[in-house]
Amino acid sequence: MTADFQDWARSRQVRIENSLQTLLPAANVAPERLHDAMRYTVLGGGKRVRPLLAFAAGELNGADEERVTIAGAAVELIHAYSLVHDDLPCMDNDVLRRGKPTCHVEYGDAIALLAGDSLQSLAFQLLAEYCLADNPQLQLDMISRLAKAAGSRGMAGGQAVDLASVGKTLSLPELEFMHIHKTGALIRAAVMLGACCGSRLTEDQLMSLDHFAKCIGLAFQVVDDILDAEATTATLGKTAGKDAENNKPTYVSILGGSRARELAEELRRSAYQSLEAFGPMAGRLRQVTDFIIQREF
Amino acid sequence: MTADFQDWARSRQVRIENSLQTLLPAANVAPERLHDAMRYTVLGGGKRVRPLLAFAAGELNGADEERVTIAGAAVELIHAYSLVHDDLPCMDNDVLRRGKPTCHVEYGDAIALLAGDSLQSLAFQLLAEYCLADNPQLQLDMISRLAKAAGSRGMAGGQAVDLASVGKTLSLPELEFMHIHKTGALIRAAVMLGACCGSRLTEDQLMSLDHFAKCIGLAFQVVDDILDAEATTATLGKTAGKDAENNKPTYVSILGGSRARELAEELRRSAYQSLEAFGPMAGRLRQVTDFIIQREF
Repeated sequence: MTADFQDWARSRQVRIENSLQTLLPAANVAPERLHDAMRYTVLGGGKRVRPLLAFAAGELNGADEERVTIAGAAVELIHAYSLVHDDLPCMDNDVLRRGKPTCHVEYGDAIALLAGDSLQSLAFQLLAEYCLADNPQLQLDMISRLAKAAGSRGMAGGQAVDLASVGKTLSLPELEFMHIHKTGALIRAAVMLGACCGSRLTEDQLMSLDHFAKCIGLAFQVVDDILDAEATTATLGKTAGKDAENNKPTYVSILGGSRARELAEELRRSAYQSLEAFGPMAGRLRQVTDFIIQREF
Repeated sequence: MTADFQDWARSRQVRIENSLQTLLPAANVAPERLHDAMRYTVLGGGKRVRPLLAFAAGELNGADEERVTIAGAAVELIHAYSLVHDDLPCMDNDVLRRGKPTCHVEYGDAIALLAGDSLQSLAFQLLAEYCLADNPQLQLDMISRLAKAAGSRGMAGGQAVDLASVGKTLSLPELEFMHIHKTGALIRAAVMLGACCGSRLTEDQLMSLDHFAKCIGLAFQVVDDILDAEATTATLGKTAGKDAENNKPTYVSILGGSRARELAEELRRSAYQSLEAFGPMAGRLRQVTDFIIQREF
């Protein structure tokens, strides 16, 4: 990772953090405890990978950074809601996230449930209230894209498949189907929403960008599985080795660690190829790709 | 209730039911169990009060019924998601809804959680994908309105206040604050979204309509409390007497049954007054108001 990229990423992470600070309801507005739980969940943590992807995609076509900030924040709110709900006792029952107690441990299950629900509503509220695209019809398309990515044929659907897979032997295509939905759909939405904030891309460009987004969505999950298998809880900031313990199929359990690493490299190459037609404008997207593949937490 | 209104209401209920049948993902599309749970929750039950309000409001200004159907379906999906989540063990822990086992009893807590989440996403997807208003900016306003009504300063926020109120003595204004959010916000959104589908109303008209919607939102809850206190589980289709059992403050527990009935009547008069300026075009809204106040389940 170059120093240039680190600076770029850090400044966007700060930007998203500040923006989320303002966009989330203040903790002294009623109902205080719910708003406090929403802020606890979203603020002060996370790599903000999805907003970074939105910013990098926005650089393809000169998107206004104010717009991308809102779009990226909306995607991050959906991601945050999914983490709160995934951590609940009836789902993964996890107590540690981003190095601190999970939302339901801190606020109780009921408030955690409502905080997740409210974060989802807020994401769509942001996409509807701010001017994010050159025309409102395009903005409706952005909302539709995020809603599909979040819903039963996207992220929530992937989570349902994941639940059903515990203790089962999955084939590689089945595992891929699960992750394309569970993690991939929202990563794809982040990339596409970032690009929607800028000048219009051609159909060919949109298709290339979508293929890029699919590759890194999958790569993200492959790396996640590798990290979960190899890292310790301290470096990960969440419970490590959980997948093996829960008898969940992962890329590492199916392919082994070294083949999983090769797969991540193949996906990086494929992602790079999809960006060729964009030339130097895709520089940031290449850097974020490297960041996703090489990250250690 | 006149026969004319009964026919009108029945045909709109059928229309919404058929529409939801088509708009919900088919049960044979993966992930099947999640889609099955979504359909189980939404279809074949409920009075569809919110869509009826949207249809009646749409009659004020000649709204296209196809548009109102989608808008009403979106509001109903938000309502349905809130019921699934409210019934979960970590919330109200209820086992009976609309005369059948609640979603988590039938499908397990995890799938019920995801079904609720997915229903919320689907609501916003519908509002973004269909053409519902004379211009896309107005449609963005509709999305923003529904998102606010659903979120932490609307329905979910009211639910949080409700949770915090168990076992406490609430004043009448506190009880009102809770219900204006918990039930009122979504009822208000239903009325306003229905009207947004038609020709533009003046600012004065919108304010009158909003005041109308606030009155019936509150009236709905007052009647709900009366029914919960008086009815049996069989006629209600959900567990009766639950509020008293859970030591939850209600209009009946604070005011007593006969004063609560008077309050419902006062709210009906106030609702009627707000409609005066609309003349005969508000006929259906008056009928739905009567339906809400006089219902017996």
